[in-house]
Amino acid sequence: MNQPHSTGKVYLVGAGPGAADLITVRGARLLQQADIVLYDALVTPDMLALCAQAEQISVGKRSGQRSAAQSHINTLLVESAQRAAIVVRLKGGDPMLFGRADEELNALEAAGIDYEIVPGITTALAAAASTRQPLTKRGIARSVALFTSSTAPDEAEETRIPDCDTLVQYMGGREAMLTAERMLSRGWSPDLPVMLVENCSRSDEVIRRVTLQQLAQEPVSATGPVLVMMGEAMRQRINAAR
Amino acid sequence: MNQPHSTGKVYLVGAGPGAADLITVRGARLLQQADIVLYDALVTPDMLALCAQAEQISVGKRSGQRSAAQSHINTLLVESAQRAAIVVRLKGGDPMLFGRADEELNALEAAGIDYEIVPGITTALAAAASTRQPLTKRGIARSVALFTSSTAPDEAEETRIPDCDTLVQYMGGREAMLTAERMLSRGWSPDLPVMLVENCSRSDEVIRRVTLQQLAQEPVSATGPVLVMMGEAMRQRINAAR
Repeated sequence: MNQPHSTGKVYLVGAGPGAADLITVRGARLLQQADIVLYDALVTPDMLALCAQAEQISVGKRSGQRSAAQSHINTLLVESAQRAAIVVRLKGGDPMLFGRADEELNALEAAGIDYEIVPGITTALAAAASTRQPLTKRGIARSVALFTSSTAPDEAEETRIPDCDTLVQYMGGREAMLTAERMLSRGWSPDLPVMLVENCSRSDEVIRRVTLQQLAQEPVSATGPVLVMMGEAMRQRINAAR
Repeated sequence: MNQPHSTGKVYLVGAGPGAADLITVRGARLLQQADIVLYDALVTPDMLALCAQAEQISVGKRSGQRSAAQSHINTLLVESAQRAAIVVRLKGGDPMLFGRADEELNALEAAGIDYEIVPGITTALAAAASTRQPLTKRGIARSVALFTSSTAPDEAEETRIPDCDTLVQYMGGREAMLTAERMLSRGWSPDLPVMLVENCSRSDEVIRRVTLQQLAQEPVSATGPVLVMMGEAMRQRINAAR
């Protein structure tokens, strides 16, 4: 029933790693203007306080309740744009990296709904800042791999170990042990420095420094999302406090 | 002569890709409070308008004048913290990725100066937003390599081609042809989709869509910094406008 000219616009906005002031200025302004905000479970209450005026809809996949299927999120997005002018789809981290953006963009395009994407701070960069460990280092590291494991049936069963100087595994809590085992078997040094960052940028952030050998031997105990950063670039500087 | 308690604090702040509202809320607030801002050539005048009250010092390596050596930047950083309370080192993109942060952090730590790092939107994510092409895609791409070539004498001469699903080459203007040639010789498809993004997020942004074959055959003509994104995830969606 809605004519194209009467539909709203959807903004896919990266919330960043968690801290409310690590969203972009553009993203914060859109939250303040939004009529409807559909948000992930990784989005913090502090962040949602920026859009107190909006109708807030949780579509989180980690909430206690049954998770919203992606097709349901797609339908909600289209329906929201048909009844409101400014719809924000607020995604943890950056929308275009490990965010299932492709499926949401396809749905919006098929429905002829206008949209715009606002990038967010991805956790790897926030974790580099928190740990004070640059991901690249002159003469040591000039390539960085961002990757994740998957248990989805349509993905390859094995986690490939990328051939880069610095490796960053997202959602690496359970999978990091296996990654470390594979890296050791492929000749990476047991002494390779590893940083584990749980709940990056939040008040309950936890940082641990281990070696690749230790990572292979002990399961990572964590309740929140864990980012695993591996490589020579992670080696502690001589005067560093942490 | 300065006692530790009398020195200021240095904030390494990511400016993001260029647009003034793609800095984080935290970064923008620090710019407004800064006494001194040392900024890169990639930082835009719009961004510097956020810190009109501050003493602004250009340490850009791309300016028309002779570029500031890294050791000179390090000295300036330390001296600035010895005469001002809030010093912002404003770096294009994110400070911890291709930003020579390691050298600046070493200098600050050696001088006993307190610092904090504020992440920024790295160009790869802003380019994914501009081009509307997610870097990862379910069943297609779940690893992303961020890399750069180097002509520095202490770096390996050859650009390694990372083994990831999506490849993003920073400062890829001149080097991208060579990268494409090497990828073709290693069996990547000539038809592989490639997005070229020049002056990402700025008013003079230019987006071009080519194939790996075309990238290998024609030099990229550009005046500004070019980001090159390669991989099946870059394939145009069926209903996409661009």
